[in-house]
Amino acid sequence: MSERNLPTDPYKGTRDFYPEDMAVQRYIFDTWAKTAELFGFERYDASVLEPSELYKSKGAENEEMVNEQTYTFIDRGDREVTLRPEMTPTVARMVAAKRRDLSFPVRWYSIPNLFRYERPQRGRLREHWQLNCDMFGAQDAAADIEIIALAAQTLIAFGATPDMFGIRINNRATLNAYLENAGITDDATIRAVTNVIDKKAKVSASEFDAMLTTAAGRELTLPEETPLEVQIVLDGLTALGITNAVYDPSIVRGFSYYTGTVFEVFDTSSENNRALLGGGRYDDLTSMFGGEPITGIGFGMGDVTMRDFLETHGLLPDSVRITAPTVAILPTDKAFNLSAAAIAGEFREAGIRTSVDISDKKIAKKIGSASEQGTAYIVVVGEDEEREGTFILKALTTKEETSGTISDLIAKIS
Amino acid sequence: MSERNLPTDPYKGTRDFYPEDMAVQRYIFDTWAKTAELFGFERYDASVLEPSELYKSKGAENEEMVNEQTYTFIDRGDREVTLRPEMTPTVARMVAAKRRDLSFPVRWYSIPNLFRYERPQRGRLREHWQLNCDMFGAQDAAADIEIIALAAQTLIAFGATPDMFGIRINNRATLNAYLENAGITDDATIRAVTNVIDKKAKVSASEFDAMLTTAAGRELTLPEETPLEVQIVLDGLTALGITNAVYDPSIVRGFSYYTGTVFEVFDTSSENNRALLGGGRYDDLTSMFGGEPITGIGFGMGDVTMRDFLETHGLLPDSVRITAPTVAILPTDKAFNLSAAAIAGEFREAGIRTSVDISDKKIAKKIGSASEQGTAYIVVVGEDEEREGTFILKALTTKEETSGTISDLIAKIS
Repeated sequence: MSERNLPTDPYKGTRDFYPEDMAVQRYIFDTWAKTAELFGFERYDASVLEPSELYKSKGAENEEMVNEQTYTFIDRGDREVTLRPEMTPTVARMVAAKRRDLSFPVRWYSIPNLFRYERPQRGRLREHWQLNCDMFGAQDAAADIEIIALAAQTLIAFGATPDMFGIRINNRATLNAYLENAGITDDATIRAVTNVIDKKAKVSASEFDAMLTTAAGRELTLPEETPLEVQIVLDGLTALGITNAVYDPSIVRGFSYYTGTVFEVFDTSSENNRALLGGGRYDDLTSMFGGEPITGIGFGMGDVTMRDFLETHGLLPDSVRITAPTVAILPTDKAFNLSAAAIAGEFREAGIRTSVDISDKKIAKKIGSASEQGTAYIVVVGEDEEREGTFILKALTTKEETSGTISDLIAKIS
Repeated sequence: MSERNLPTDPYKGTRDFYPEDMAVQRYIFDTWAKTAELFGFERYDASVLEPSELYKSKGAENEEMVNEQTYTFIDRGDREVTLRPEMTPTVARMVAAKRRDLSFPVRWYSIPNLFRYERPQRGRLREHWQLNCDMFGAQDAAADIEIIALAAQTLIAFGATPDMFGIRINNRATLNAYLENAGITDDATIRAVTNVIDKKAKVSASEFDAMLTTAAGRELTLPEETPLEVQIVLDGLTALGITNAVYDPSIVRGFSYYTGTVFEVFDTSSENNRALLGGGRYDDLTSMFGGEPITGIGFGMGDVTMRDFLETHGLLPDSVRITAPTVAILPTDKAFNLSAAAIAGEFREAGIRTSVDISDKKIAKKIGSASEQGTAYIVVVGEDEEREGTFILKALTTKEETSGTISDLIAKIS
C-alpha cells in the first residue's frame, strides 16, 4: 500500500472495551443496577451533550472549570456545548423540568460516562463511567442514612466485607457554623479553608496546620467533637448494622454545592488507599431553573476505582470474564455449515447460547479454539452424524460425552 | 431571583430518558443483547470520541461527510476529534489492532450511541442508539445466512411474526458485474448509478427510469433475475425456516464500503413503511490499518425505528414501563422512618426491591402514591405494628392482606 496506515489506537485518554473487559464492565454495572433497584431507585439517562451554561451558571469558579477542564465547543447553530463532566447538574435539570409530575421523594440512579479534559498525564482517563444515585425531596436524616447504606451496599453486593472499607462522614452546615464561630464568614475565605481541609490526607500534620492558618488568616483547628447532625446519621447506620462509619472533620468534598451531610468511602487496603466514592446533600441545585429549591442527596462512584477495589481484594471471579457461548457446533466441513446452523437454532430456541464454527479450520483446530475460549460444550456435525441423526455432546472440561438426538442433548444441558 | 432562570431542555436533537422511557430503552437493549448472545456474539464497546482520520481516510466523499455531518472539533493537543457517527470503523479498528490474538470467525456486537450533525429539522435526532452485530473472518455464505437470521431474530424475540416484516437482499458484487456488462466501469458513474438505485422507493417508476438513464449515461434497467449468490442466501434462510426474504435489486445501501451481500429489513405496516435495519458484507475495511484485509459482514438497527416498530404492532407490553419497586414500606410518621428502613433491609436481603416513603405526607397520601406508581405491595409501619411485631402486607391490585412477622411477609412474596 502506498498510503500510510491508520493507527489502531483509541482516542487519547479513552479505552477500548474488548469482550473480556466489557464483561467485567457489565458485571460491575449490572451489580450496581441491581443494588440500586433493590433500594427502589429508578434508572434514568440523558445525552452526553449538554448546553455549557448548565455548568457555568454558578459563577466564575465554574466558568473556569468549564473552559479549562471540559470538552466544550461551539456548534454550527452558535450554541456552546459541553460533554458532561458530572451527572448532578443533568439530574437536577431533569427533576426541575418535571417537578409538577413527580411524586417525591424521587429516587433515581444512572450509570453515565463522564468526560474531563485532563492535562496529558499517565493513567489519567478523559472518559470514565460512574454510578450516580440521588434522592430528591426528602429532608429527613433517614434520607442521608439510606443513601450511605446504599453506598455501602454497592460494595457489599460484590462480596466486600466491612473490614475492606470505611465510611467517613462530615456535615458542611455544621462546619460552616464552626468557621463562623471562629470569625470566618466571607465566602472566599470559607472556600480557601475548605480547599485546604480537602487536601489534609495529602500533606503532613504540621504542613496542614500551617496551610490552614494561612488560608484562615488566623489560628484554626478542625472541630473534634462529633456534631449532632453527624451523630444522628452514625446512630442510624449502626441501627441498620453498618458499623464501619466514623465522623471525619476533614471530609468536605470538592464541589461547593454541598450544604449538609458529606461522606466518602475509603478502601482500607494500603495498596489502594483512596476514596472509592463520595457524595452529600445539596439543597440549592434545582433553584437555578426557577421555582422553590428541591433538596437532594446523592453520591457518585467511578468504574476505574471500583475495578481496582475488586481486584485488590480478590472480588472479581475469573468466570466473569468468560464470554464464550455455552455450546459450539463444529461442522467437519463447510458442506455441513447449514445443517450446523439449523442445529444451533434448536439449541437457541431452548435458550442456550450457541455458535457455529464456520471457519475453514480443521476439526481438531476448531475443538482447540472452542476450548481456549471457555466454551462449555461442543457438538461435531459431519457425514455420520447427519446420516444417523445421532450426535455427541462433549463437555470440554470434564470430557464427559452424551450421545443422542439434538433434543436429548438439549435436555442434558437444560 | 434576579438572574434569568436556566432552561430545563436537553441539548437540541437529544433526548432525556426519564424512568418510564429508560425502562422501554432497557427492555429493547436487553432483548437485543440476549438475542445476540444466543447466537454466540460477544459484547464490546469503545469511547464515543474517535480520531477524525478514522472517518476521513477513504477519500473526498468521506471528508465531506465528516466536515458537514458530524460533530468534529480540535482538542487542545491539536488533535481532530469526532463523536462517532457509526460503529463500523471503530469495530474494524479494534479487530485490526488485535488481529494476531483473535480467534476467527469473530462475532461481536455493541449497542453504541451515535451522533449526526443533522440540519435542524423536526423529529430528526442528533443522537441515537444502534444495535451493531458483525462477524469477521468468515467468507462462506453461511456467515451471510447467519447474520440475516440473527437480524430477523432481533425482531422475533420481541414477539414479531414473519408477516410484520420483510427481508430484501441484493449483492453489490453481482450488481457491479451487471453494470460492467452494461459498459459502466468507472467509479464515479458506478457511484452515481448506485445513488439513484438507493432512491428508487422515493420516486415514481418513470422518474426512476429517467434518473437511472441520466446517471448511467445510457439506457439501463435493473437486473431482474436473482443472482446465484443471492439465491444461495435465500435457500439457506428457507432451510432455517425464514420464508419472508426476497431478492430486491434496488437494495444497495448507502455506504460505499459494501462488497457483497447487502440487505434491509422492512416493516410491512403501511404506517411505518421504512427500513428497520440494514447491513452487508465489507471486505476491505480493516485494510486501512495495514496487513491483509479481513472480511466482515454486519448490520445496524436503530432504537427509534425499533420502538416505532414495537408500538405500531402492539409489541410493547405496558408492564415494561413499570419501574416502581415491588414493596413500599410506609411509616405512619417520621419517628418510624428508621425502623421502616431496617424492615426494608430485610426484604432486600431476600432479593425483593423495596423502598421506604420517608416524605412528610400523610399515610393515606403515601398509599395513593405507591398505588399510582405501580408498586405491588405496601407494608404500613406505625406504633401498633412496631409494638406487636406483626405487620400487614397489602397487595395493591387485589387488596389481599396477609398478616404476620416480616419473615412471614417475605415468605408470602418469595
